[in-house]
Amino acid sequence: MNSSEKRPLILVTNDDGITSKGIKSLIDVAVLFGDVVVIAPDKPQSGMGHAITVNQILRLDKSLLFGNTEAYTCSGTPVDCVKLGIHEVLKRKPDLVVSGINHGENSSTNVLYSGTMSAAVEGAMENIPSIGFSLCDFDANADFSVCQEVAKKLIINILNESFPKNICLNVNVPKIKFEELQGIKLCRQADAFWEDRFDMRHDQFGKPYYWLTGDFVRKGAAEGTDLHALEQGFASIVPIQFDMTAHAAMDAFKTWNL
Amino acid sequence: MNSSEKRPLILVTNDDGITSKGIKSLIDVAVLFGDVVVIAPDKPQSGMGHAITVNQILRLDKSLLFGNTEAYTCSGTPVDCVKLGIHEVLKRKPDLVVSGINHGENSSTNVLYSGTMSAAVEGAMENIPSIGFSLCDFDANADFSVCQEVAKKLIINILNESFPKNICLNVNVPKIKFEELQGIKLCRQADAFWEDRFDMRHDQFGKPYYWLTGDFVRKGAAEGTDLHALEQGFASIVPIQFDMTAHAAMDAFKTWNL
Repeated sequence: MNSSEKRPLILVTNDDGITSKGIKSLIDVAVLFGDVVVIAPDKPQSGMGHAITVNQILRLDKSLLFGNTEAYTCSGTPVDCVKLGIHEVLKRKPDLVVSGINHGENSSTNVLYSGTMSAAVEGAMENIPSIGFSLCDFDANADFSVCQEVAKKLIINILNESFPKNICLNVNVPKIKFEELQGIKLCRQADAFWEDRFDMRHDQFGKPYYWLTGDFVRKGAAEGTDLHALEQGFASIVPIQFDMTAHAAMDAFKTWNL
Repeated sequence: MNSSEKRPLILVTNDDGITSKGIKSLIDVAVLFGDVVVIAPDKPQSGMGHAITVNQILRLDKSLLFGNTEAYTCSGTPVDCVKLGIHEVLKRKPDLVVSGINHGENSSTNVLYSGTMSAAVEGAMENIPSIGFSLCDFDANADFSVCQEVAKKLIINILNESFPKNICLNVNVPKIKFEELQGIKLCRQADAFWEDRFDMRHDQFGKPYYWLTGDFVRKGAAEGTDLHALEQGFASIVPIQFDMTAHAAMDAFKTWNL
C-alpha cells in the first residue's frame, strides 16, 4: 500500500472495554497509519473467547471518548464488535483489524479464552489481516509504550508485505523497558495451561457461590514457543489459524469400528 | 476398560441448557456406559464459544431433573460447567466428557462459536477423552434417536480403544432416518462460513438495536470435509486440537523486518 492510494481503514477493538488504557494506547498507534474506527465493548469482556450474542439484542452507541476518531461502544462481545464493524458500521471492508492492547498475557493456550484474540480470529475468518496485542501486565495503569513500538513495527510490515490468507497474529509483549526488549520473535503456541481452582464463598443468605481462579502453569516453554520467547525478553508473535482439525491425530482413529 | 474395573465416570454437559431435550437424550445414552454426573447451564448458552466467567460469580445448584442421576445447573458457560465438574464437583478425573446433543449443526467453522464444542475442547485441554455431539436440526423437539445410536457406537470405541492426547471429537449427525444413515466418517473441518447480517430494529423509545443473523454458506464442502460427509448422509467426526498455531503459514512471515 503506497501513499498514492487511499489511507488504510483500520478497525480497532479490545476485550477490556472502551474505557481501558490499553485500547487508547492502540488507537494512538493506529491513527498514525490509517483511518481508524473504534468499536469496543461497553464493559469488560475478558475471558469471553469466541462468544457471540445470539439470544440477546445488541446495542451500538456513538462514543465521543477519542475526539475526532469515530468510535462506538457495543453491548456485546469482542467478536460481536468485529462483526458489527464489518457488516454494519464500516462502508468498506477494513484493511486491518487490531485488537487490544490487552491488560495481561495471552500467550500459549490463553488464545482460546481471550476475547482480544478471538476478535483477531474473527478478522481472520473474514480474511482481513488481523493482530491481537497483549502486554504481560494486568495493571489498569500499565505502561504500554513498549507494546506501542512493537505495534508500529508490525503494522508497517502488515501494510507493506503480503499477508497469508485467513491468518491472524497473537502478539505478546513482556513487561520490560524498551532498552531491555531483545526483539520480536516468530513462535508457535506453547502448551502451558491453567491449573484451575474454585474459591467457594457464601452469600448473605448462606448460599454458596464460586469464583474461578487458579495458577497459570508455565510448562511447555520449549524453545520456539511464545512462552520461551517472552521469558527471554522477546515480544512473541504466533500466527493463528482457525482450522482446529487435529490432522496429525487422524491415524489414531483409523482402527475404530465405525 | 473391562467389566472388572470401576465403571467409567462420565461428565455430561451442553450449551442449550439443562432443560433441553438434547441433553436428556445424551444422558440416556451415557448411563448405559458409566456413572454419570450432569453439570449444565441453567439457561441457553448457544454461541458462547470458549467463554469463561471471570468477572462474575458462579452458582451451582443441585438439579432433580434426571431422577437418580446426579445433576447440577450452573449459572455460567459450558466451559465453566466442565471446569466446575473437574475441579469442584467430581471426586476423581472423569474418564469421558460428553457434550450435547446440540440442537443444530456444529460442522466446519461453527466449532469456534459453539459452546457445545468448547466444552469438549476444555475436556481435551484437561487431557480427558471428550466428544461434542450435534444434530443438524434446531427444533426443540427434534428426534435424537439416530444421534443416540451414533453416540453409543462412539462411546464403545472411546472406552475400548486408546484415545490420542489432548484431542476431542466434533460429531455431527444429519437430520435423516436411521436406515438412511450411510455410516460414520472421519473428516477434516470444512472451510464454510457465516455470511453475517444485522437486523436493525427500533425499541419503544425509537432507539436502534440489532439482532445478529445471517446465512451459513456451505462452501468448502470438498471431499474429506465434515460438510461433504453430512451432505452424503454420513455422520461426521472431526478430531479437534487446541494448538491454533498456523504452522504452514510460518514461512510467510520470515521475510518480515522484525
